[in-house]
This record gives sequence, structure tokens and C-alpha cells, in this order.
Amino acid sequence: MREVAIIGAGMVRLGKYDGKPGHLPYKTHEELGVGACRAALKHAQVNHRKIEAVYAGQTATAQVQLGQRVADVLGISGIPMYNHENACATSLAAFRQAYLDVANGVHDLVLVFGAEIMSSMLSGGAIVLPEGAMFLQDVGMIMPVFFALLAKRHMEEYGTTKEQFAMVSVKNHKHSMANPYAQYQREFTLEEVLNSRMVCDPITLLQCCPTGDGAAAVIVASAAVARQYTTKPVRVVGSTVHGGEYKASKGDFTTIGSCTKAAKELYEITGVGPEDIDVCEQHDCFTPHELVTYEDLGFCEKGEGGRFIEDGLSDFGGKCVFNPSGGLQSKGHPIAATGVAQLVELTWQLRGECGARQVERAKVGLAHNGGGIGPGLEPGLISLTMLAI
Amino acid sequence: MREVAIIGAGMVRLGKYDGKPGHLPYKTHEELGVGACRAALKHAQVNHRKIEAVYAGQTATAQVQLGQRVADVLGISGIPMYNHENACATSLAAFRQAYLDVANGVHDLVLVFGAEIMSSMLSGGAIVLPEGAMFLQDVGMIMPVFFALLAKRHMEEYGTTKEQFAMVSVKNHKHSMANPYAQYQREFTLEEVLNSRMVCDPITLLQCCPTGDGAAAVIVASAAVARQYTTKPVRVVGSTVHGGEYKASKGDFTTIGSCTKAAKELYEITGVGPEDIDVCEQHDCFTPHELVTYEDLGFCEKGEGGRFIEDGLSDFGGKCVFNPSGGLQSKGHPIAATGVAQLVELTWQLRGECGARQVERAKVGLAHNGGGIGPGLEPGLISLTMLAI
Repeated sequence: MREVAIIGAGMVRLGKYDGKPGHLPYKTHEELGVGACRAALKHAQVNHRKIEAVYAGQTATAQVQLGQRVADVLGISGIPMYNHENACATSLAAFRQAYLDVANGVHDLVLVFGAEIMSSMLSGGAIVLPEGAMFLQDVGMIMPVFFALLAKRHMEEYGTTKEQFAMVSVKNHKHSMANPYAQYQREFTLEEVLNSRMVCDPITLLQCCPTGDGAAAVIVASAAVARQYTTKPVRVVGSTVHGGEYKASKGDFTTIGSCTKAAKELYEITGVGPEDIDVCEQHDCFTPHELVTYEDLGFCEKGEGGRFIEDGLSDFGGKCVFNPSGGLQSKGHPIAATGVAQLVELTWQLRGECGARQVERAKVGLAHNGGGIGPGLEPGLISLTMLAI
Repeated sequence: MREVAIIGAGMVRLGKYDGKPGHLPYKTHEELGVGACRAALKHAQVNHRKIEAVYAGQTATAQVQLGQRVADVLGISGIPMYNHENACATSLAAFRQAYLDVANGVHDLVLVFGAEIMSSMLSGGAIVLPEGAMFLQDVGMIMPVFFALLAKRHMEEYGTTKEQFAMVSVKNHKHSMANPYAQYQREFTLEEVLNSRMVCDPITLLQCCPTGDGAAAVIVASAAVARQYTTKPVRVVGSTVHGGEYKASKGDFTTIGSCTKAAKELYEITGVGPEDIDVCEQHDCFTPHELVTYEDLGFCEKGEGGRFIEDGLSDFGGKCVFNPSGGLQSKGHPIAATGVAQLVELTWQLRGECGARQVERAKVGLAHNGGGIGPGLEPGLISLTMLAI
């Protein structure tokens, strides 16, 4: 496989584009997607006519051929266009195909983006679940419940405290203060997080990602083409995806087994381990997910996640800065945009373009994106992407 | 790139799975997808545990991670799973990624399927169009209108008759009489087709594909792995996809320019031309589409499509049998299933397994799948796949 690089990254500010008082002006999927793609093309200094293929991340809310609709406005046409859906891992699934196609010589220069509207849409904002797959939902196993059960078991097994979970929210909200693209730029104290409305014990409202809209895009090139455009290409060191499986966690409900498997494979492929990773954009949809991922990615031993956050090891000055963007907790989680939004933040971090939230001397970054509920209450897909400069 | 083969193909009968009187029993997307995948695995004699990746075709009606949901029932988990949407070209877009991944050595043995419910679903059967892309629909430019305008211009420019368009329906309905997987198995006379309710002049009701549900699946393998399973691998000779573009047709509204470009590229890549193709599963959503495709694929000169069908050259005993399955006209067009359903028919044809509708000595087959309305009233994507035995 050839070397592959990200040579440009852009996004729109995440938030509620529903035009309601205090919110952002009303926008469609196309408008948000076009905004992010134009920003990425500009960042890469690539003319849109040079793009050889488009890979879009869209959920059912976008309905039909979002890649084509956005490309049309950009003046891009007559080339292969693909549209991916993979629940909350949607746009990293699209990126994965783009990465493989460039690595394998199918294309040299491509556009990847994801766009999502959750706050305002034809169906009234619902990410409608399929008729035949509602059993888990019918019995109450919705996403916060899944992570609350995991958290409770973690507390029981390892003595993790509700304060330690809440510290993830405090840290990520603090990070987002310096991110103009974040849906929220507001700090909260540990007490405020703990005392916010209970959603599912121990997860309070301020430990849940918000509903929001947005879009993010990256320009992906072969190493040879990348050199024509930039002296700061961000190398794609490796990418792995794993669907959930019944036995991945081996009955240990405090481990997301598909994540440990995807990480093991990624570290083997790349020869890079957690000790080398400076910055991680992690899928902190609910705070227990970030805490348990410290362990599943090998940043600390199983059961030590609570100590890891409490000791500041996932913050600036620690071992690896988790979610300098603010993460899904505060930057936001417009589903189909999230995976590529993680790559955007990492690209900017590795190029040293993040201003007040810059992770100093960041050389290696990891994006961790998970989506859906699959077999054995594993996610439907875990996608890891390692970048380096 | 390595040689790639289809080693198994299966589908469920297409039709209305809504449980209404005279219709098929009620089924979900998952049930239809599982039925098709099990049939393909059985046809290939492949154990599901050997599958290395799943590529699903789904439209918004399936909502979330159809690939994972179907794989879960099949007992397939812990591997990469992708879900593609590309309007009526949805499942050939999924197949395209699978083909490239196997050709490039990413995987050796994968499952591709598409499943669609149109007659019965949460949203009441509508394939909802995106909020920001409804201008063409608002001004009346829906699919039958597009093909009716094309037909009218073809009549004006080349003297094509309404009878010649109707002959496509007569031929394809006749073909479907021998296809137990077709939604309809009923013959119509030319008079019946012409006298059926007018939808958009010159297109009558019996020249429109029906609303329906269904699923289709193929097992794709590297040539080396294919040899372990079968002595009759169906080679994937080549695959091209082209998004629509403003200037593809160069102002000629009787040509679908993205199709002529995709065909030119395919013939160049493969060294195989229309004179070598024995059987074609063509996207005959409305009868004028098949007639104009004879020309766009190079089976006859521009303007000669009417004569081509009238002389029986697209029927058994002619130059190339178009839609021996009955095509979208009569086999049916459950959107996300259609592209792979074309590959299923071609696989069976090239292996000589089609019984009364068998094209004798069929060695080379072509699938032609188009989806959406893109720039310049070109389709959003044209996908061509050439198979051979």
C-alpha cells in the first residue's frame, strides 16, 4: 500500500442550525456540507476540479446521495461518489474507504466529508431506528443506559467513583473554551456536572453529548500528490475497523472488546503504541466511554481509568491529551460529521494550528469513533485512525 | 490488482412483503436481507464464519447499520461492515467498494447485499427526498417526467415511435414469465401496454417499474480463494462508476453522457466491447431508459435504438439479450436491492443455471445500474460491472 496523507481539513462550527432564538441560522445538510468542504479545499489549497472521488458520511436524515448534492454545489461532477452510513461511526467508515482507495492507487486526491442535521429536519429531529431492530430500545437499552450499566459495573469492580466520570465532562468542557468550532464554550465545576439533572445513574445531563448539527471535511492524497500541495502533510499511519461481536468482551462488561481488538491490530500494523500517542480525539458520547477507553486503548491498566483522569493524565501536561477540541461532550456530536470532525481537530493539532488549545509538540494523534449497538452490547463498529506528522 | 470472482449469488423473490391480501407475507429489511445472504452463502457453499467483511446497500428506509443487523442474524460479527446509499445505484456502489477491496488484497472473501422495503415501512412507503434537494421535484421533474422528456426528444430527433418504447415492456414482461424471483410473471400485448393508464406521455403505467420489496446478495472472492470453492467462478472483468456532470451529454438530451463515458472507460479497461457481451441486465426503470441505453452502451448507433428493439436484437436470438430476468419493469425494482439483483441474474446466466430463461452460450455479462438525478439531469451515478465465465 502507498503512503497516504491528509493535506487539508475544515469544518463548520457545530451547533443547532434551526434558526430558533439564540441558536444558529437555519441550514440544510447541503449548506453545512458545502461549508466544511470549502474550508477543507481552502486549507489544502486544492482546486475542486482536481478532486477524483467523493466519500460522504450521511445518516438517514440526509436521505439521498448527499455526496452528489454537496459536490454539485461545489462544482464537482462526473467522478465516483459514495455515501456511507454507520451510525455514530458514519464518517470514519467513509474515510476508511477513501484511505484504502488512495493507498491502493485507485485515486490520488479525494474529498471526504460528513454532514448531519439533528435539531431541525423533515422527520422532526428523530434519528429513526429501524422497525426490526427496536427490541433493545423497547426494553429500555438506549445509549445512556448502556454506558450507565458499564459505569455501575466499573464502580463495583474497581471502586471507580461518580466524581471520576464527571471529571471527563469538566475536562472536556474546559477544553472547548478555546475551540471556536465547539457547540458549547462554557466551563462547569465538578459540582455543577454532578448536580445537573440525572439521566441514568450515574450519568447526569452534563455527562451526555448534546443534540446538534454540523459538518466536517478532509482532503486525502497519496504521499506524492501531497508533496505538491504542502510541506506539512499529516500521514495516515494506519486505520482499523471492527464490528462488535458476542465474545469480544468475554463477559467483562467493563471492557469494550471490539475496541481492544481494533487497538491491538492498529498497534501491530503501525508499530506505534499508546506511549507514543500525544493527542486522542475519543468518542466521549457519555463520560464513562472516555474513562473506559483509557483502559481499552492501553493508556492504563484495566480498572485504572478513574485514577487516570483524576491524576490529570488525560489532560494537558499528562500522558496524552484526550479531546482537546472539547470532544463529543462539548464540541458536539452531529452523528455523521463526528468521525471526520475528529480527523479535522487532529490534523490541525499535528500541524500546530490550534492556538490556545494546542497540544505542544504533538506528533502522533489517534481518532476513536464508535457507532451503534451491535451483538453482545458491543458497538456496531469501532473505527480507529492513527495520524502523524 | 488481483483477479476477483463472484462465487455465489442468491436473492429472495421480489414483491410486496406487506402482508396485504394477495401480497407476500410481511417481512422486515433484516428478514429479506438474511434470506438473500443465506441463499448466496449456500450457493457458494461458504460457511458464514469465513466472511471477512460485509458491504450492505441500504436506503434511508433501512435507517441504521443494516449490514450489522443482517450479519448479526447470520452469526457474522467482529469484522469490518460498511453500509452504502446511492439512490437506485445503491448496491452496485457497495459492490464497487467490495470489488476494489478484494482486488487490492484488503480482503479475500466478502459478502455484498442490498435490501429494500418500499411497500410497507415506518414512513408509510415514501422514499423521502431531502429537504434541500426538492427543487427539481417541486417543478415536476420526477423520474418518469425525465424519461418522458428524453423519449419525446428521441421521437422528434430520430423518428422513434411510442410502440418501440412499449416493446421494451412487452419483451421484459415476457422474459419474467420464466423467472420465479420476479415480482410479476405475466405477459402483456403491445396494445395492453400502450392502452394502460398514461403516466407521462409517452410512458404508460406498464412502462414504469413497480413499487416493491426484496433483497439480493453475492459472495465475492479473490481468484485464489474462489478456486477453493467452485469450478465455475464468475470473473469480475471490470467495474466503472461515473457521477453525472453538466457537460456529459453536451446538450444532447437523447444521450445519457455519464453512461457513454462509463462504457468507454469500461471497454478500454477490459478490452471487451459490446460485440462480445451476450447478456445485459439493464436499469429499465422506464422503457425509454433501456432503448437509449442500447445506443449509449454502443450496441447500435445513436438514434437506432427503436429499430434495435423492433428487430428483436435485444431479445433471445438477437445480438445481446437485455433483461432476461424481466428487468426492473417486471422482475421489480426494490431500490437498494436492484444493483446486486442484476449481478445475481448475470451470475446464474453465466453459470448456465437459469432454466427456461437461460441465454445460450452466455460468456460475458454486463450490469448497468443508475441512480438519482444529478447535475444537468444526468443520473447521480452510473455504475457498470462486467462479468465473464
